[in-house]
Amino acid sequence: MKRAIILLVIVLMALDYGYAQNTEIKEDFVPSELNQPGKQYPMVNSQGYARFRIEAPEATSVRVGLGQGGTILTKGDDGAWWGTTSNPLDEGFHYYHIYVDGGTFNDPGTENFYGSTRQESGIEIPAHDKAFYEERNIPHGNVQQVLFWSNSTNKLKKAFVYTPPTYGIDGKKYPVLYLQHGWGENEYAWWNQGHANLIMDNLIAEGKIEPFIIVMTYGMTNEGFRPGARSQAAPGNRPNGQRPAQNAQRPARSMRLNNGFEAVLCDELIPYIDSHFNTIANKEHRAMAGLSMGGMETHSITLARPELFGYYGLLSGGTYSPEEIANTGVKFVFMGCGSKERPEGVIKAANDLKAAGFNAMSYVSEGTAHEFLTWRRCLYQMAPKLFK
Amino acid sequence: MKRAIILLVIVLMALDYGYAQNTEIKEDFVPSELNQPGKQYPMVNSQGYARFRIEAPEATSVRVGLGQGGTILTKGDDGAWWGTTSNPLDEGFHYYHIYVDGGTFNDPGTENFYGSTRQESGIEIPAHDKAFYEERNIPHGNVQQVLFWSNSTNKLKKAFVYTPPTYGIDGKKYPVLYLQHGWGENEYAWWNQGHANLIMDNLIAEGKIEPFIIVMTYGMTNEGFRPGARSQAAPGNRPNGQRPAQNAQRPARSMRLNNGFEAVLCDELIPYIDSHFNTIANKEHRAMAGLSMGGMETHSITLARPELFGYYGLLSGGTYSPEEIANTGVKFVFMGCGSKERPEGVIKAANDLKAAGFNAMSYVSEGTAHEFLTWRRCLYQMAPKLFK
Repeated sequence: MKRAIILLVIVLMALDYGYAQNTEIKEDFVPSELNQPGKQYPMVNSQGYARFRIEAPEATSVRVGLGQGGTILTKGDDGAWWGTTSNPLDEGFHYYHIYVDGGTFNDPGTENFYGSTRQESGIEIPAHDKAFYEERNIPHGNVQQVLFWSNSTNKLKKAFVYTPPTYGIDGKKYPVLYLQHGWGENEYAWWNQGHANLIMDNLIAEGKIEPFIIVMTYGMTNEGFRPGARSQAAPGNRPNGQRPAQNAQRPARSMRLNNGFEAVLCDELIPYIDSHFNTIANKEHRAMAGLSMGGMETHSITLARPELFGYYGLLSGGTYSPEEIANTGVKFVFMGCGSKERPEGVIKAANDLKAAGFNAMSYVSEGTAHEFLTWRRCLYQMAPKLFK
Repeated sequence: MKRAIILLVIVLMALDYGYAQNTEIKEDFVPSELNQPGKQYPMVNSQGYARFRIEAPEATSVRVGLGQGGTILTKGDDGAWWGTTSNPLDEGFHYYHIYVDGGTFNDPGTENFYGSTRQESGIEIPAHDKAFYEERNIPHGNVQQVLFWSNSTNKLKKAFVYTPPTYGIDGKKYPVLYLQHGWGENEYAWWNQGHANLIMDNLIAEGKIEPFIIVMTYGMTNEGFRPGARSQAAPGNRPNGQRPAQNAQRPARSMRLNNGFEAVLCDELIPYIDSHFNTIANKEHRAMAGLSMGGMETHSITLARPELFGYYGLLSGGTYSPEEIANTGVKFVFMGCGSKERPEGVIKAANDLKAAGFNAMSYVSEGTAHEFLTWRRCLYQMAPKLFK
């Protein structure tokens, strides 16, 4: 009898397991759209589960740093390591990496994207509203790499410049948005991970905005603080004699936001852009926005240089108070974030600004966290409000 | 006595080992210039040796696919895997990857470069003549990403367009060179691995050439043959009903060079470039060149469409015979390769063309093989001869 009960429990558990497998995870997996050409894995399904396959036949442990608590892979019949996230992932773009026998590597199946101060693997869970950044058969603008000499750092520096489809053809001059990436990312993030160019092309094709230029440059330009170098930095090398960060996991904000980037952006890049592109070179036609750390940079630089920028955008990157912007002459303030961040903050801040008579807007991206779908949506919401 | 002899042999072996270590490999290693920001390894020394350090504490085997026979890493006191190539590497750029417990991954220390139909690690052995592609404080042209719709494939396609520093400022129209990458590479190769934009900027700044535009697009556009997909392709999916390749390791040439790319390049991209850029849109001001497989594409497309191109360049990519180009009206033919390839072929071919009355030139890159330093030098040699 006891054996029969145990057998029954085992059968019920097996049935339950089969039920969970068959009804909870749909077997409609397709290759992630960010895979390298011809690569089948990683795959994603219609519910947002991700499935991985890593070839490392002699490894003893393979793990993926994605999904709640990560995803432990197990060896399959084909000798490769397989695993599916234990939960659906949020829609949109996610950085990740894999651990093979204690080492950190990228998934050979996917393209790489610079985040967290290193090249990371990327995976895309198709968003229900992805049409606004999809590729269409419409006129497309260009993304131009420009190399400009920086006297303050004695280095050649890089920026990418989105020019709208009509640029150079209609003979017109355009407003400019300076758009900053987040901590650990670089000047490729907004067009590669963010699809800023496609968002603009689609908005323009639909007649929803007047075209403008977007400039994206590298914002972690504190020359004493190179990304990835913090563990090696001796105290004597700290910029401006600042104290070590309290939290060793991340650099302190004061280390990240020194004057170095402000000088490169305001005194070197902006003059370069205004002298090499058809821009309307005044505050009324110049905006600055950024995501996360790029929002903090936007906050400090717009307040320090109110004569340069007329429109401010903070994307998961803090808020402005009415007191802070009292004497800036700002025309419009955008503050957005994901619903899984702390949306109350941006909503309250925008209400406070509006109550004080400022033109302000908050936006909350539904169902997203501190990730790129939040910021794609923020750009889509913010762009039509700029330069009005 | 016997023990004394054995001891003596051991001491002599140790001395010899120490001698080899100290006098043969100079300990002047510095981080490779292609490392990700802040990464110390891989390193290179002044003799061309490369040294690797890979963290994978629980791995049992780590190998680097670079150096004669590869480089086997051994576990160091710090728990990381270390190794130095057994021989100096040729000057210039090298793709590589690492093997961790039987799996193929990239070195987390370096940037990635698309080659061999996958993202690969890259390392640079500084060349003695690298000044011609170094970054300088001079006017720089832009590299523009353009997205153009391809009717023949019903897809949005990408190209990168180098525009010289004066482009758009002097109001002039420019000649155009269509420049193709090699097998397994993509439209990023010529500017990322090849520094085509810096080579042009430097040549222009030194007054050695009249500026022109360079267009770089993806040449492996046989839609039935996606890179990386060949092991999965069923016979029925082969394009144009072609027979399977004889050599399963690489696709047969006939599979790689079908009409798909010719149509995209000649009937879609060229008209797009001529209608969106300030080009001189005729044969006398349009060139085509390519490296390796891109040379084969150049060979077949220039001969198939002699009305489009007036200047041909094959970079480690075959030769033309006088008979082949007899009725093309070609103005100039460039054929180059590395001294470690088969330079006799290009030298003889150029001599044959010259003997037949054609304007032709051969160039042999000293000390280099089928790699990017050969092709950087070829571009540097070829560019001043175009559009004369």
